[in-house]
Amino acid sequence: MKIKAGIIGSAGYTGGEMLRLLINHPDVEIAFVHSNSNGGNLISDVHTDLLGDTDLRFTEELSQDIDVLFLCVGHGTAKKFLEENPVKEGIKIIDLSQDFRLAGAAGTDWVYGLPELNRERIRTAKFIANPGCFATCIQLGLLPLAAKGLIKNAVHINATTGSTGAGQGLSPTSHFSWRNNNLSVYKAFDHQHLNEIGQSLVQLDAQFDVPLHFIPQRGDFTRGILAAMYVESDLTAEEALKVYEDYYAGHPFTHVSKNNIDLKQVVNTSKGIVHVEKHGDQLLVISIIDNLLKGASGQAVQNMNLMFGLDERQGLRLKASAF
Amino acid sequence: MKIKAGIIGSAGYTGGEMLRLLINHPDVEIAFVHSNSNGGNLISDVHTDLLGDTDLRFTEELSQDIDVLFLCVGHGTAKKFLEENPVKEGIKIIDLSQDFRLAGAAGTDWVYGLPELNRERIRTAKFIANPGCFATCIQLGLLPLAAKGLIKNAVHINATTGSTGAGQGLSPTSHFSWRNNNLSVYKAFDHQHLNEIGQSLVQLDAQFDVPLHFIPQRGDFTRGILAAMYVESDLTAEEALKVYEDYYAGHPFTHVSKNNIDLKQVVNTSKGIVHVEKHGDQLLVISIIDNLLKGASGQAVQNMNLMFGLDERQGLRLKASAF
Amino acid sequence: MKIKAGIIGSAGYTGGEMLRLLINHPDVEIAFVHSNSNGGNLISDVHTDLLGDTDLRFTEELSQDIDVLFLCVGHGTAKKFLEENPVKEGIKIIDLSQDFRLAGAAGTDWVYGLPELNRERIRTAKFIANPGCFATCIQLGLLPLAAKGLIKNAVHINATTGSTGAGQGLSPTSHFSWRNNNLSVYKAFDHQHLNEIGQSLVQLDAQFDVPLHFIPQRGDFTRGILAAMYVESDLTAEEALKVYEDYYAGHPFTHVSKNNIDLKQVVNTSKGIVHVEKHGDQLLVISIIDNLLKGASGQAVQNMNLMFGLDERQGLRLKASAF
Amino acid sequence: MKIKAGIIGSAGYTGGEMLRLLINHPDVEIAFVHSNSNGGNLISDVHTDLLGDTDLRFTEELSQDIDVLFLCVGHGTAKKFLEENPVKEGIKIIDLSQDFRLAGAAGTDWVYGLPELNRERIRTAKFIANPGCFATCIQLGLLPLAAKGLIKNAVHINATTGSTGAGQGLSPTSHFSWRNNNLSVYKAFDHQHLNEIGQSLVQLDAQFDVPLHFIPQRGDFTRGILAAMYVESDLTAEEALKVYEDYYAGHPFTHVSKNNIDLKQVVNTSKGIVHVEKHGDQLLVISIIDNLLKGASGQAVQNMNLMFGLDERQGLRLKASAF
Repeated sequence: MKIKAGIIGSAGYTGGEMLRLLINHPDVEIAFVHSNSNGGNLISDVHTDLLGDTDLRFTEELSQDIDVLFLCVGHGTAKKFLEENPVKEGIKIIDLSQDFRLAGAAGTDWVYGLPELNRERIRTAKFIANPGCFATCIQLGLLPLAAKGLIKNAVHINATTGSTGAGQGLSPTSHFSWRNNNLSVYKAFDHQHLNEIGQSLVQLDAQFDVPLHFIPQRGDFTRGILAAMYVESDLTAEEALKVYEDYYAGHPFTHVSKNNIDLKQVVNTSKGIVHVEKHGDQLLVISIIDNLLKGASGQAVQNMNLMFGLDERQGLRLKASAF
Repeated sequence: MKIKAGIIGSAGYTGGEMLRLLINHPDVEIAFVHSNSNGGNLISDVHTDLLGDTDLRFTEELSQDIDVLFLCVGHGTAKKFLEENPVKEGIKIIDLSQDFRLAGAAGTDWVYGLPELNRERIRTAKFIANPGCFATCIQLGLLPLAAKGLIKNAVHINATTGSTGAGQGLSPTSHFSWRNNNLSVYKAFDHQHLNEIGQSLVQLDAQFDVPLHFIPQRGDFTRGILAAMYVESDLTAEEALKVYEDYYAGHPFTHVSKNNIDLKQVVNTSKGIVHVEKHGDQLLVISIIDNLLKGASGQAVQNMNLMFGLDERQGLRLKASAF
Repeated sequence: MKIKAGIIGSAGYTGGEMLRLLINHPDVEIAFVHSNSNGGNLISDVHTDLLGDTDLRFTEELSQDIDVLFLCVGHGTAKKFLEENPVKEGIKIIDLSQDFRLAGAAGTDWVYGLPELNRERIRTAKFIANPGCFATCIQLGLLPLAAKGLIKNAVHINATTGSTGAGQGLSPTSHFSWRNNNLSVYKAFDHQHLNEIGQSLVQLDAQFDVPLHFIPQRGDFTRGILAAMYVESDLTAEEALKVYEDYYAGHPFTHVSKNNIDLKQVVNTSKGIVHVEKHGDQLLVISIIDNLLKGASGQAVQNMNLMFGLDERQGLRLKASAF
Repeated sequence: MKIKAGIIGSAGYTGGEMLRLLINHPDVEIAFVHSNSNGGNLISDVHTDLLGDTDLRFTEELSQDIDVLFLCVGHGTAKKFLEENPVKEGIKIIDLSQDFRLAGAAGTDWVYGLPELNRERIRTAKFIANPGCFATCIQLGLLPLAAKGLIKNAVHINATTGSTGAGQGLSPTSHFSWRNNNLSVYKAFDHQHLNEIGQSLVQLDAQFDVPLHFIPQRGDFTRGILAAMYVESDLTAEEALKVYEDYYAGHPFTHVSKNNIDLKQVVNTSKGIVHVEKHGDQLLVISIIDNLLKGASGQAVQNMNLMFGLDERQGLRLKASAF
């Protein structure tokens, strides 16, 4: 018996990635693919890489005959959608927006869906707030330290994201003529993902109380985030490596690389890779993910797998693009 | 006494290039920089690379106290602008749109501004219709043959343009996430520039009467056009080389390369380079230009130089970006 | 009982793609991963995207306890390898080089492994000569016409390839500083793949006897080939579409798009997509593949699937990178 | 009377940029263009963008009949060259390597050639050690603070460089297939340019004694460096802006932008642009340069202009590539 899945907002980037993943997921049947603007159109007319893979069409209708609902709409819209469209008891919800990530606002039915932080709670969750892309990448770099209470000084973070992180809306900073061969800083010290990162660090270390200095950058590539972060630390290189290896030992998607890493190792996969180096008294952590997969739709599927008792990697053994 | 220049449509790509060129042109004084949407704003707030180079501001006012007017507005808009804003007798006009390129529609006051075709007529012209970018690149590859009556069979042309050729308007095909690492064909056999190319070939060879099969492509780079074209020919490789070298002998911006060429040889310059090879009975011609310079604003300045009796290269000895 | 596979030349690009595919292929067990230069090293130290996916190591040893051998070495080296390392009777060989593609040189044991041309012969073949990347892309565009005897005039082909087509060797034309934002023509009218294309067209149409004019180009992207080709034709647009749809009706990896296409629709998949347009008396065919998958390792797995009686798509339902 | 210039190592990237600049410099005559590996060859056969601009050839001969010698060879080679080829008294030398940047090793004849730091000393210098590219970009961001003694806490710097920063040598990290769409960290906390930066900060502020934490990154573009750096500071945003505006008031190539900046504002120019923002108690400084121009050959020409009493901008009013 397959899991019946519905997708809201399926004409966007994260919706498209949901489709690319679920179409090949052996335990999922796509019940409906909702889009307000594309009702009736072939999915492969919008996500044209799916030509030949599916004859599904977008629909404007909603159905309650599903087991799980993925919300792939914008921030604010997810909350509004659920208010206007009450979902039948028993249907699990996985929301990719930021609307339910902060516990205070979301209430107790929602679990923050970062398996490397909350795997057991996710298994039994009703609703999942899927983490942000920067937030995932940075947390993968910091959780092992926080779990041991080892973040005692300000953390310095610089992270560069691909253009898909900004969605498919047209804007001057997503214009090819501008972005190609370009680089820029935005929302310095003020990115909205800092809140969910802080919440997670406090969850692991109630004493956590140092600043996270975060400089986000727009890169001239389409997929992926590379975060370089460092903090003063007493750990030796060997001790630091062990902290990370121990923390991620049971996690199938997050790996510790002994060698230096580069962004394309994870592009088009749902993996995260971290690498740690010690320089004087500073511990450097480099963390990479694909913003649309481990940073969005891949993690959503990982959460679904956990919620439905499947192998965490089901449907997510993806071929890296590598080049 | 400097040439007083006005620019209409100066917030766009070709308008910006006009500014980048004229600011450093030793014989030109910029009289006004017109923009409907940016009146009062600093030029360097829109063309941000000009920060520190100029304190000029856009204006919504027009002045007739100029020697030359550059029209950098869209197709159709140039004609309309001139109808609504009659220009004082004696002011020279250089229009970068396609509105006056075809002799039938433009009337006798307009000269098609391709110096490699019409240099002497340009010197005495009142008004110049500046050629299209694809049209310039392809004509540089074909004019020497046409001048000798050597195009007797269908010509096969494939040319790939950078994203700036599509202007700064936002569109799905100029979205970075789509265009990066992508390639596509558009307007196959039907590009509007075929008309002006045909007109020029007939000008040189009244017998010219074969098809030009033209496949335009959108490349994933910002600047430049590379056109590869071939035609059946009796010429030997040496004869063909001589035809091209002779034709371009007196032209300071168009060069014949004995070695194979690549697009970046001309990027950020106002040069054209052609390379010819003979393969069996086919004569292959590769032609490269920067679409915004030799294909637009650089050629406009070249035309201005000719019209005002200046050295054709004045203000156009540009450093190639090379990489 | 899984198929035991060995890979020769597994440190290169096509060898890496073989590994990325076979690691997730449900019916394959990797017996050994041969590399002369990397014996003993972790695969994930060379193909670093495989970190966390496999603990396999390269070996310098060869084993005969396999069912299929993939040769991922350079042109010339494959033939030499087989001469120096006789393979036990019964082991199937799939060679990705060009050494056995031409029937005259290869002898009768070898079948040219293009499923869209030779599917039934592949099922029973001992040895497979896997087609070239340009050759695959262009043949997908021409086979349906040839099968009906409809190629009666010269065919004009321009195709642009990504950098991975040139392998991982370091060279001036694969230097990032040169290739980024660049475009160039190479081996015009003279690419070695013309031979295998011609052989296939004659196989389908013994009367085939017109020139294929082929201009290959180096693009500034990593993966994929887009070929634009045209030929004079009496077919209407509708008739042409039907010819292509009929020909590919039973083929799971090659699709006909009614809409215009762009390269990224197939990147990181093993699909081919073709699109046909009629312009005057010219029939335009655009064809796209990923050069490393449908143009190399993906097609090798497709051939293996056919040879071992598996579903042709087994292990090849790949998530497109899309962006 | 023009300045006679000789160039050593003129087949490399910085040598090529020297040529591109000096060919159009109104006060310079190129005396010789030295290359060990290309003697006798046309310059335009190596720097192919110069086709049509010069008929000069590389030479293996050295001449002492020059006014200034530019050394564009690798680190270590410059020192060795001067030991083996004593230069006649009175010839000024501008060395682009790092061999003479540190005062202790270089001796008193050498001046560190950063005009924003040492303009007056450069005017009368015999020999100039041209600064490194990262070093220039970062110093432009820090000099104004150091000059006021305002750097009292650790500085956190992340800077991303284009591929030309690594020169034209072939290497895995400059392979297009690897670098395109990629990002990586290298030499974290340990880049050799930290020494010259520290030396300059001490020159301005003898009390300077805090760590510079520097994470260099390899970007997937060809030209340019963007550095984002921050430090705890008591300055208000307005005060900080004034500190920078005052410091750079008389410097024609370094500008302070009130708006946020992006890398392409300076690509293919010899400008630097800095932008400052205050966030809580942290002062963020973003600094951009073209690594081959303000970071190498452009700055070398700027130094030459100062040494010979020319307008500092002579030959350096470059058209930005902008896109």
